[in-house]
Amino acid sequence: MTTMTVIGCGLIGGSMALSWKKAGIVDWVIAYGLNPERLEKAKDLQVADEVTTNIKEAVRKGDIVVVSVPVLAMPQVFEEVGKYLKEGAVVTDVGSTRTFVIRAALKGLGDKFRQYAPGHPIAGGELPGVEQASSDLFDKKVVISTPTEHMDKAVVDKLEDWWKKVGSVVQRMTPEQHDEIFASVSHLPHVLAYGLVDMITKESDPNAKLKMAGAGFRDFTRIAASSPVMWRDICLTNREALSKELTRYRKELESLQTYIDLGDGKAIEACFENAMRNRRGLVFPGK
Amino acid sequence: MTTMTVIGCGLIGGSMALSWKKAGIVDWVIAYGLNPERLEKAKDLQVADEVTTNIKEAVRKGDIVVVSVPVLAMPQVFEEVGKYLKEGAVVTDVGSTRTFVIRAALKGLGDKFRQYAPGHPIAGGELPGVEQASSDLFDKKVVISTPTEHMDKAVVDKLEDWWKKVGSVVQRMTPEQHDEIFASVSHLPHVLAYGLVDMITKESDPNAKLKMAGAGFRDFTRIAASSPVMWRDICLTNREALSKELTRYRKELESLQTYIDLGDGKAIEACFENAMRNRRGLVFPGK
Repeated sequence: MTTMTVIGCGLIGGSMALSWKKAGIVDWVIAYGLNPERLEKAKDLQVADEVTTNIKEAVRKGDIVVVSVPVLAMPQVFEEVGKYLKEGAVVTDVGSTRTFVIRAALKGLGDKFRQYAPGHPIAGGELPGVEQASSDLFDKKVVISTPTEHMDKAVVDKLEDWWKKVGSVVQRMTPEQHDEIFASVSHLPHVLAYGLVDMITKESDPNAKLKMAGAGFRDFTRIAASSPVMWRDICLTNREALSKELTRYRKELESLQTYIDLGDGKAIEACFENAMRNRRGLVFPGK
Repeated sequence: MTTMTVIGCGLIGGSMALSWKKAGIVDWVIAYGLNPERLEKAKDLQVADEVTTNIKEAVRKGDIVVVSVPVLAMPQVFEEVGKYLKEGAVVTDVGSTRTFVIRAALKGLGDKFRQYAPGHPIAGGELPGVEQASSDLFDKKVVISTPTEHMDKAVVDKLEDWWKKVGSVVQRMTPEQHDEIFASVSHLPHVLAYGLVDMITKESDPNAKLKMAGAGFRDFTRIAASSPVMWRDICLTNREALSKELTRYRKELESLQTYIDLGDGKAIEACFENAMRNRRGLVFPGK
């Protein structure tokens, strides 16, 4: 019997439990967490077979240990995992920033770092919690694998094979490439969406505006409903790359505002046209 | 028999033709446009019963004349409509900016301004064209009515009743209120989405980033696939309100970047938390 220990059984951890079991990779799921009520929920929903608030017990029993907590909580979790991980077990994580997490794994796992392989599934949803977990969340979705020279190639290969079995498409890159790419296409848009909603709601009568918002606003700000702690941690652990993107984006907005102030229709249209052409050409995986 | 003349039979004009006919408000639709191929498409799709590139003929036959072209094209169209509009007919438009359009209607329609009532349906989609038109596009969606003291109250009431018959929810406000609100919840997000895609595609290897984009990026940038001419015109005809919002938004981003650079997790979380709470509380009408 293969046991999966999920440390942090929310949307992603819960969906891993469901999908990896469905794919026949694991037979039994133990969910570890701090909140007994949330753990009971995971059991009620049959996402976890067993729940515990004892991390020692949870890690000791795991053949595959998944670290699925906000990234700033990971260093501490890796330390605990390093203490209790059994021989031959594999540790992985699902964090949205890579250089920070891999450094934390190296430090926390110590000798057991050779049992670790990193993965970042590009899947999720703005609403957190095990209630949102689904066995097909990762179907046809990309999972980024960012092996480094200090990792055990066999463990990395094993993790990648498991993700493929679940139906995901595995893409390899360096941790640095990952963090630069996702600063652009994920972390920046989240900051922008949070910023817009925050700005509007700080006005004297935000509801006059918000009740008029249509489908454009709805989709643009969907990600502003995401977990503040998870995204705070992403911002803090990918500061340099994200700040670089923010600087570039603020320059882009400065230009656009200048065009608008000057009534430069040609320049506005050139920007919109370029964006439109590129955006219409994009194809997104999965549902 | 009641004839609707649609000047500019794209997504919105075409959807008005379909939905107003379905609601029994009009029996016959004439589409006027400059491009014979696009007009034939409108006829093939049975959105229009009759098509013409002769604006005089189109306007003369209309009992209800809908101006559904990019807003900077409206002044010229209103002038033509003013010349040929028959007695008792009603003119309306669907433009996304109100003070500019109403001023254009006043100037272009002259004596016939009393036959005009303004409407802005908060509905649409990023892909333009009559192929996207649908008879239920306006179902449960808000239509903004912005009457001014110079308009004929009976004509305004008539237009509002028609929209209600189509299944829309009519909301009244002043043109200035409209332009301020939509600068915030519609025009600004469009500029932000266009700006992000434009910025990324100007890099040396945009595809390395774009092919990794997930559902968050997909939804955030959906509106960047919208018509560049339509949105250029909106930016140009709502410059002051939009520029004010851009200034405020750039300040918001400056603060957020400072928090990120300083690693101020508390301030980042407070912003994200406020946005999240407000965004989760929003309910959007329609599908």
